[in-house]
Amino acid sequence: MIERPVTASSETIARPQRLADLATPCLLLDRAKLERNLEIMAGAVGRHGVALRPHMKTAKSAAVARLATAGQAGGITVSTLAEAEYFASEGFRDILYAVGIVPAKLDRAAAFRRTGVVLTVVTDDPDTAAAISAHARATGASHRVLVEVDCGEHRGGVAAGSDALIAVGRALGPLCAGVMTHAGHSYACRSIAEVEEVAEAERRAAVTAAERLRGEGLATPIISVGSTPTALHARGLAGVTETRPGVYMFQDLFQVQIGSGAPEAMAVTVLASVIHRRPAENRVVIDAGGMALSKDRSTASAPRDYGFGLVLDAQGRQSFGDAIVERANQEHGVVTAPTPLPFDRLNVGTLVRVAPNHVCMTAAAYDRYYVVDGGNAVIDVWHRVNGW
Amino acid sequence: MIERPVTASSETIARPQRLADLATPCLLLDRAKLERNLEIMAGAVGRHGVALRPHMKTAKSAAVARLATAGQAGGITVSTLAEAEYFASEGFRDILYAVGIVPAKLDRAAAFRRTGVVLTVVTDDPDTAAAISAHARATGASHRVLVEVDCGEHRGGVAAGSDALIAVGRALGPLCAGVMTHAGHSYACRSIAEVEEVAEAERRAAVTAAERLRGEGLATPIISVGSTPTALHARGLAGVTETRPGVYMFQDLFQVQIGSGAPEAMAVTVLASVIHRRPAENRVVIDAGGMALSKDRSTASAPRDYGFGLVLDAQGRQSFGDAIVERANQEHGVVTAPTPLPFDRLNVGTLVRVAPNHVCMTAAAYDRYYVVDGGNAVIDVWHRVNGW
Repeated sequence: MIERPVTASSETIARPQRLADLATPCLLLDRAKLERNLEIMAGAVGRHGVALRPHMKTAKSAAVARLATAGQAGGITVSTLAEAEYFASEGFRDILYAVGIVPAKLDRAAAFRRTGVVLTVVTDDPDTAAAISAHARATGASHRVLVEVDCGEHRGGVAAGSDALIAVGRALGPLCAGVMTHAGHSYACRSIAEVEEVAEAERRAAVTAAERLRGEGLATPIISVGSTPTALHARGLAGVTETRPGVYMFQDLFQVQIGSGAPEAMAVTVLASVIHRRPAENRVVIDAGGMALSKDRSTASAPRDYGFGLVLDAQGRQSFGDAIVERANQEHGVVTAPTPLPFDRLNVGTLVRVAPNHVCMTAAAYDRYYVVDGGNAVIDVWHRVNGW
Repeated sequence: MIERPVTASSETIARPQRLADLATPCLLLDRAKLERNLEIMAGAVGRHGVALRPHMKTAKSAAVARLATAGQAGGITVSTLAEAEYFASEGFRDILYAVGIVPAKLDRAAAFRRTGVVLTVVTDDPDTAAAISAHARATGASHRVLVEVDCGEHRGGVAAGSDALIAVGRALGPLCAGVMTHAGHSYACRSIAEVEEVAEAERRAAVTAAERLRGEGLATPIISVGSTPTALHARGLAGVTETRPGVYMFQDLFQVQIGSGAPEAMAVTVLASVIHRRPAENRVVIDAGGMALSKDRSTASAPRDYGFGLVLDAQGRQSFGDAIVERANQEHGVVTAPTPLPFDRLNVGTLVRVAPNHVCMTAAAYDRYYVVDGGNAVIDVWHRVNGW
């Protein structure tokens, strides 16, 4: 058993008062934008009458999770057991660990139940399903398992119409609690109409799989779907019981381009300092490079390629034209723009913000959010959990 | 002032005994390979009679730094003030912070001197140089500064022959301690002959700049160069006083392809578990995705593209043919190969290792190394410092 990497159980730590007090690079979270994003998703999901089980893989923060589950059933989704342990320690009692379980992690999964936390795990593998059943018999652990279904992403999951689905369900027997699927391929859509189609395929795969398992006499109370694009744009979710979007909370340059939110919805940015000026080349260098921004290049496949991020001023306004981080070395981000940069406002030490391509990857470099109000005030500090 | 993100000051923590005890994904460090890499670099640098000031931006570990400085002058290089604070707390007394300083970080930099640590900082900006001098006068801080010189990388630094060089030097006055340059563009070389040329340009730029500053009556005791390729392959380092390679300690798929080391020199891998099997598509999915491997795609520009990493067996042998991580989602790595994968040896739960494209980026996701001996034994656990 590995100790979990987050150290403080409290949400708040001694906090700076203003942006200028912060050591760069660091992560900023605009609370008003976060709250607006949460409202939009709650409305989108609410109209279908299904539960919103927010995926905390993006935010990895108990403070954010409390806001995201306010007015909801209270369940959350996580992507690592370290997240599950952190959120359990923060009082969350209904946690879906949505990455395929391996037998070596069953002892750690079983430990949750002893503290009153319902941890649900997933598998698509008959041998693993049998190992989970054997573990439950041998240890008395009351595992609760969803069968992972492939709705077109072709990553994990068995096909809804496959023999393997039934084999997994039978191997789980009474431990089977339903099905889950993830339309990750919705990220490849470039129109709302395409997302609607993927959302319907996701719904249909989950419902079909659940019906087949019910036909085998297996209980399937949970029919779980979800990605940010499909949760926002599904025309209907008949038969589904819950959805699991995550990145909607923060949005990013990629999500904005596939129609998941407006540019002004982007709630998380990296605060950085100018460390070099190169007027002759129309460049500045900032202290946010690959470590601070991640090497994610997802916008390379989007209509607009933002390099390693869009460069904004310290208040988050796009006042440097279309300046982007064109190159990212470990601790250096080379910024350029198609039009002349305003070097009179870009001195060594000038604070800027960078809107990330893919906020899940960018946020992973940080252990905390500095929560901001849209101006220069830092209104709170919220922890994140990283690692496994 | 931000507390530093590493929590334990001791190097060792309760340690598992075998690979099978580890929760995946996690980071493995082969001690024998590390030691061999350190020997090779010590030999390469030693023949020039210059000091080796290892760059700890890759390893970020006091245990590794102690091995890398054994038999050397003892100075190290760092890429963040968090690293500087960590290594100072671990007893290192001569630290070069090799990323351009901003005025807001001067108080934090000055704090080192009060604990007996010599922290050297760098700038290429006349206004910042003046701010450093003003800070020293106002606070009594005894800053020690190198002028950053551009030897062709075109990231930071003033040209060796420029007026700006002299302006920065004059603004520093007695705080000027020499020059530093970094031939990061050596990573674009694809032959040893090209690296030799870049190394000579790096040397010449540093020595030229130092001579010009000396001509102004400025002291320049330090003439600092270095990257792993140029430190290994420089034909001569006449006039240089120290070199600062870093990634040589671990090596990676990219460095191997540009001639910095042999494939068997790669000392760091990610241990992962198979979580899905898809024999019909000749794929497995492992629990090391973009978070565990980073999204670095540096091998895309190398002779051979390894996707997000080369997949090895649990002992680090290439026994799955040319299997690579083709796709990396947050916690999922999709593995495929040009030849059939041995599915009889790839079950859910099977341990594999992934050799990374760019080990500096990959290691950043982890707070520790599990030190291994080449077999199944975990012989130690070493901390890393991350963040800023």
